[in-house]
Amino acid sequence: MNNSADPSRTLRTLETLESNVRLYSRLFPACFSHARGPFLLSETGERFIDFFSGAGALNYGHNNHQLKAAITEYLGSDAVVHGLDMATPAKVDFMETFNSVILRERGLDYRFQFTGPTGANGVEAALKLARKVTGRHNIISFTRGYHGLSLGAAAATSSRFLREASGVPLSGVTIMPYDGYLGDEIDTAEHLRNILLDSSSGIDAPAAILLETVQGEGGINVAQKEWLRSVQALAAEIGAIFIVDDIQMGCGRTGDFFSFEFAELSPDVVILSKSLSGYGLPLSMLLIKEAIDIWEPGEHTGTFRGNNLALVSATAALNIYWRTEIFSQSIYRLGTLMRHRLNAIARAHGDHFTVRGRGMALGFDCRNTHLAETAARKAYDRGLIIERCGPADEVIKFFPPLTIDPETLTKGLDIFEDSLAEAAPL
Amino acid sequence: MNNSADPSRTLRTLETLESNVRLYSRLFPACFSHARGPFLLSETGERFIDFFSGAGALNYGHNNHQLKAAITEYLGSDAVVHGLDMATPAKVDFMETFNSVILRERGLDYRFQFTGPTGANGVEAALKLARKVTGRHNIISFTRGYHGLSLGAAAATSSRFLREASGVPLSGVTIMPYDGYLGDEIDTAEHLRNILLDSSSGIDAPAAILLETVQGEGGINVAQKEWLRSVQALAAEIGAIFIVDDIQMGCGRTGDFFSFEFAELSPDVVILSKSLSGYGLPLSMLLIKEAIDIWEPGEHTGTFRGNNLALVSATAALNIYWRTEIFSQSIYRLGTLMRHRLNAIARAHGDHFTVRGRGMALGFDCRNTHLAETAARKAYDRGLIIERCGPADEVIKFFPPLTIDPETLTKGLDIFEDSLAEAAPL
Amino acid sequence: MNNSADPSRTLRTLETLESNVRLYSRLFPACFSHARGPFLLSETGERFIDFFSGAGALNYGHNNHQLKAAITEYLGSDAVVHGLDMATPAKVDFMETFNSVILRERGLDYRFQFTGPTGANGVEAALKLARKVTGRHNIISFTRGYHGLSLGAAAATSSRFLREASGVPLSGVTIMPYDGYLGDEIDTAEHLRNILLDSSSGIDAPAAILLETVQGEGGINVAQKEWLRSVQALAAEIGAIFIVDDIQMGCGRTGDFFSFEFAELSPDVVILSKSLSGYGLPLSMLLIKEAIDIWEPGEHTGTFRGNNLALVSATAALNIYWRTEIFSQSIYRLGTLMRHRLNAIARAHGDHFTVRGRGMALGFDCRNTHLAETAARKAYDRGLIIERCGPADEVIKFFPPLTIDPETLTKGLDIFEDSLAEAAPL
Amino acid sequence: MNNSADPSRTLRTLETLESNVRLYSRLFPACFSHARGPFLLSETGERFIDFFSGAGALNYGHNNHQLKAAITEYLGSDAVVHGLDMATPAKVDFMETFNSVILRERGLDYRFQFTGPTGANGVEAALKLARKVTGRHNIISFTRGYHGLSLGAAAATSSRFLREASGVPLSGVTIMPYDGYLGDEIDTAEHLRNILLDSSSGIDAPAAILLETVQGEGGINVAQKEWLRSVQALAAEIGAIFIVDDIQMGCGRTGDFFSFEFAELSPDVVILSKSLSGYGLPLSMLLIKEAIDIWEPGEHTGTFRGNNLALVSATAALNIYWRTEIFSQSIYRLGTLMRHRLNAIARAHGDHFTVRGRGMALGFDCRNTHLAETAARKAYDRGLIIERCGPADEVIKFFPPLTIDPETLTKGLDIFEDSLAEAAPL
Repeated sequence: MNNSADPSRTLRTLETLESNVRLYSRLFPACFSHARGPFLLSETGERFIDFFSGAGALNYGHNNHQLKAAITEYLGSDAVVHGLDMATPAKVDFMETFNSVILRERGLDYRFQFTGPTGANGVEAALKLARKVTGRHNIISFTRGYHGLSLGAAAATSSRFLREASGVPLSGVTIMPYDGYLGDEIDTAEHLRNILLDSSSGIDAPAAILLETVQGEGGINVAQKEWLRSVQALAAEIGAIFIVDDIQMGCGRTGDFFSFEFAELSPDVVILSKSLSGYGLPLSMLLIKEAIDIWEPGEHTGTFRGNNLALVSATAALNIYWRTEIFSQSIYRLGTLMRHRLNAIARAHGDHFTVRGRGMALGFDCRNTHLAETAARKAYDRGLIIERCGPADEVIKFFPPLTIDPETLTKGLDIFEDSLAEAAPL
Repeated sequence: MNNSADPSRTLRTLETLESNVRLYSRLFPACFSHARGPFLLSETGERFIDFFSGAGALNYGHNNHQLKAAITEYLGSDAVVHGLDMATPAKVDFMETFNSVILRERGLDYRFQFTGPTGANGVEAALKLARKVTGRHNIISFTRGYHGLSLGAAAATSSRFLREASGVPLSGVTIMPYDGYLGDEIDTAEHLRNILLDSSSGIDAPAAILLETVQGEGGINVAQKEWLRSVQALAAEIGAIFIVDDIQMGCGRTGDFFSFEFAELSPDVVILSKSLSGYGLPLSMLLIKEAIDIWEPGEHTGTFRGNNLALVSATAALNIYWRTEIFSQSIYRLGTLMRHRLNAIARAHGDHFTVRGRGMALGFDCRNTHLAETAARKAYDRGLIIERCGPADEVIKFFPPLTIDPETLTKGLDIFEDSLAEAAPL
Repeated sequence: MNNSADPSRTLRTLETLESNVRLYSRLFPACFSHARGPFLLSETGERFIDFFSGAGALNYGHNNHQLKAAITEYLGSDAVVHGLDMATPAKVDFMETFNSVILRERGLDYRFQFTGPTGANGVEAALKLARKVTGRHNIISFTRGYHGLSLGAAAATSSRFLREASGVPLSGVTIMPYDGYLGDEIDTAEHLRNILLDSSSGIDAPAAILLETVQGEGGINVAQKEWLRSVQALAAEIGAIFIVDDIQMGCGRTGDFFSFEFAELSPDVVILSKSLSGYGLPLSMLLIKEAIDIWEPGEHTGTFRGNNLALVSATAALNIYWRTEIFSQSIYRLGTLMRHRLNAIARAHGDHFTVRGRGMALGFDCRNTHLAETAARKAYDRGLIIERCGPADEVIKFFPPLTIDPETLTKGLDIFEDSLAEAAPL
Repeated sequence: MNNSADPSRTLRTLETLESNVRLYSRLFPACFSHARGPFLLSETGERFIDFFSGAGALNYGHNNHQLKAAITEYLGSDAVVHGLDMATPAKVDFMETFNSVILRERGLDYRFQFTGPTGANGVEAALKLARKVTGRHNIISFTRGYHGLSLGAAAATSSRFLREASGVPLSGVTIMPYDGYLGDEIDTAEHLRNILLDSSSGIDAPAAILLETVQGEGGINVAQKEWLRSVQALAAEIGAIFIVDDIQMGCGRTGDFFSFEFAELSPDVVILSKSLSGYGLPLSMLLIKEAIDIWEPGEHTGTFRGNNLALVSATAALNIYWRTEIFSQSIYRLGTLMRHRLNAIARAHGDHFTVRGRGMALGFDCRNTHLAETAARKAYDRGLIIERCGPADEVIKFFPPLTIDPETLTKGLDIFEDSLAEAAPL
């Protein structure tokens, strides 16, 4: 273990040894040694409130002790940690628990496909399956959507910066306007329907429609219930697989376990990752309807699919947080608290800013990249880790752990208010 | 935890709940509850010797206790488990340790890029970087090569079964004959050179040449030192990035830490994953030469890059196994033992079979899919987990943990000999 | 020469010997032996008025005798007929004549690139050039656009039927809503601008914007002047090449020589073909601005580029029809006559039908495929050759020769009126 | 008509008005006003013997008077010149004549598909059809092959210079070694078979195998009979469409009408263009076996398909040259004369040069680009038009009209001998 708490040494090491591609060690230039719940601690003893939560991978907070108990016990017992996709009690328990606690309670019926443990891998697998089922190649995804950076997933991702990094033209995906993208008057679901039913629109019949119900990276853009239902109905109408990428917005972030429950959707495929393991451990899976589970054995594989340690913490998280409605109610309550406070801040600034989101996924749109950057930097200086999103990184993204206590949440919001006031004097 | 050790219940659960895509739970139809070193134990108390080692992800054995100590301590201390690519002592320690224990000792000089924690993600990142550096799109990979299943990596993978599963034509890669593919008389490196220097061969100038030094999935095909050196020289000559995919063959599998040390290569990019963490935890990284580290910050990202728990066990593995040459010598010694025994078995069968490989990556080519399948199944029935590879799954793949004791290794080989004899009576 | 005027024999020959792909010999099931001006004559002596004009390739009528004189003289003199792209007096004359009669008169300044003699080849060359100039891959084309069927051109063509015939996913083109496609309230040029300036829209920065000013195959959809000017300005703003595909609408079809003159455009590249030769002979060329003429010699070639016989009739057509404004005025006059008459017919039918177009490119939108088909078939039975267009072939396309006399034009319109009345009784 | 025979004026006009892409007006910098048989005459009265023959489009010589009579009569009669793919007597006659004179005599049975009148368009149509028939995407073509420059055809063309001009990565084609490409010892047909039957070679199952029997642009590379037959058999074995691109080598160039007759092939699809019309007029068609003629009507179209004027001269050419074996015998005789003379020239130069080819398609491989260029330029100065081919333009390509008289042929060869001697003194 690194004994000397010399942050400049750490930064020098990173500059010397780590690729230029590193990002967050620049934005948050401390060396973080410990973490617990909503807090990150630096080597030099500074404490930060974390409103970023591992880009949505830490919905239950850092090093959640109830989950830690489960994995520590599992590790200690020499139960199978790595077993490819062999059967293990950990995997069977996870599936049975997820099935009873989450699916049956919601009247949903899915099969589990464990993919490589990143969201991108789940997306790749979902697109493959959709193409296999339909015999079509085209995928519909949406403006400002983010679905990962491997070549198949990147084609469905909208950021030009990230697309161009692929080094080859991305193909196989048509990106269409998301809900609200064309302004309030235009129903982009109706637009999409017209385009897809028009045999001369130039848009190839899609294998799948892939979407997030709230776009996290894209700026906390919220799709309305009716829009989502229209898109789901359209997919059914044209024989396309309807895929919800719930990687960032699932596992409770918007209040319910799935982000699409409020709209009563029944996607053909759901992609989960990030907070699925509950402890920040890599895990990704697809929920797929039995009727389209036409995979041949071994047609899509991966060394780390079904990461058992992550399945153990995932099962624990389901048991602890999702057997009753208490946790969900708490998320809604904290989300409301956040929203009210952020709205008040926006109001105090003459409503030049916009607050949007669902549950505890909120965005504070500064409409100004420099301002957002300054506010976030000043927040960091005051001890708040907060990230930006949106096409020009002009939206401050509020992603505290769902398990945060109201005091710490309020403290973080206080810091944000002060930081914003300094960046944009009232 | 699943209390009832009822294997039929487990299998029913899998059939009901898990996607058809599941593979190893069919080949090895037990529910594996515990593991340690070279052993897997089923729920019902059967013990299996594992000659598969998580497809190369468990070079140090299951649940290696020396490594377990490190991650248990790390977990217990509430050090940062998930921190995106923020600086942590665990990450700095890993880089410094890898740099001093592995790189400097070998006269190598690289920067670290932590990618999403699967090998495929490392491959995707490496291909992106090569395309960005060269401004070219084409990648040269090789017959029988395997590099993963996301869309960019799958294009470099040779299996038709896996390629067709992509559902779209794969592009951007030209697959050329590997060493030995055209028979002993033809130097396929020379062939490749002629093709690439011929401006009218139809093969676009490559951004990269991507290869495994021993092809694991492809049938334990071994490239010779001179061939590898010729290909590396060719890459330099034509301005292509030379990438070694050491995901399966690195971390000691062939005797040295890197599989390419015997050939004194100096690849522009090395991809590591699988056994890198040492404990079966997902981790993947690129080693890239500073001169080509032209990434913009954040140009390739991923939620689970730099999995800290995995970095801790990875550091421990380096410290325990690679500070001296003892471990490497042991691998060579055990590899020789395996090879002699397998050669003897082949000889006893009239040399209808071929043994090949390097270090502890050995293949026993049955030249007959049915026979290989039968032998592997009978081995399983006798308590040996062993997998097949090669274009028709006709090669038995010997991948015991590198830490296996000679007695267990011999016991596993005994089982194989008996199983083969039953499948193919002498 | 076929001596026996036995139409059933002809049809049998076609059925036996010609591919199923044949189309117009099914719609117009006569064997056409002679033609002159607006008339086609069948082997069995029937005379048809031709309102189709070779899909726009016969703007000056069939076998225009003034042009015939030029090519007959040329053939007779043993001047060079086929010379690849060697210099010939015929080619130099054509370029000088086009330059003085067409370009200088309009204040335009272009270089000539003679491509393979089909419109599709011109499109392929234009897209190549745009990609070479910009280093970008994406092309913007529009809903209901038609640009040809070779793989590069087909990617910019919107018909699903024709796209799917390619047998591979088409890529490299983003198809966006044309003027009016989203209804009257939505300015699709503004929509396009927003999408292209949004770095997170998912639409890659385009090498070119490619459009028809009136979409012929797409249903005689007319772009407004301001829309066209906005799109041209947008192309300049974002560094994209602005390409007008004037293959079908150029050479006078809309009243002026170029279809974009009314909007005072100055495209970076103009593609001409179809009626360019004036005599139905294959010829295609690009007009390209000198600043982007960065081709290397021989970088795009073709055996039949610069078809000299076609250049001779093309030069004659320029001299005969375009040295004064008389011809253009006549087109406008006849176009107005057609439009009034078609409007009257639509009115008589209670305005269930829509008339649209510019100059002598008019569409009569029946909004009903069956009705349009019936009307066209009945017109054929009465001696009028007329084709349909639009996404469901629901628009009757009026494309008489520009040189048609008013009497024959009126006679053709009479036939149409009667045929429509029979198909859709008043 | 350009009256002033001022070549410098002509060249200035070209430099000012024609795109940089122009090629042959640079290599042969005269303005060619007249042509007849094997002769081209410049504006200023110089006479050139033409050993290039419009890159194979003028097998019957320039302005062949027997063919001219047919088209002059046709033009004079006001028969249909442009009729899309409507039935015309000219078309029916052509099909019946081709069927009886060419196909039935050779025991071949095909349907005719008239495509856009360039070879590239024929190739595009053939690849589409193969993909449609098989449901596969991949096409096998060969090193040093040339199949045209539209996007689909360019992917099958091997020249890196021409491929890169496409501006986008070309995909959908795997280019494999042609006969002899890997040296005399290696049977590349066997190599191809191994690759295609190996499900782990990385080469996707092909929709078609596309080849030239003699590669014209690629350097007059000759495939042997057994190789061709092996490839045809392989295509049948794996369910791929076997396509012979006879655009340049068909219509008698190698001695027989089809270049593949010597090998007794029966391709699934034959592509013809270039000399098909006989008079240098644009024309292209596919011959397709009835069993794979699964096109929907109108699935592949084109404005200039079935160019009637070209069909008339094509029919005349069949009647005049191919009703007996006399013409074919003459080609063989003249080809032998050429070969002997070229061999003698090579011998006189100490056999540093290689002569190869079939019939009257011969290449003189200088193995030195500069030397070949110098020899060709000096030949031009002496009145011989001759072009080069091969990957580095190091092969002098002998393509005189098939109708050339022995005296002129000898005169041309004399010029070549002198030019070469000057370029490479004996």
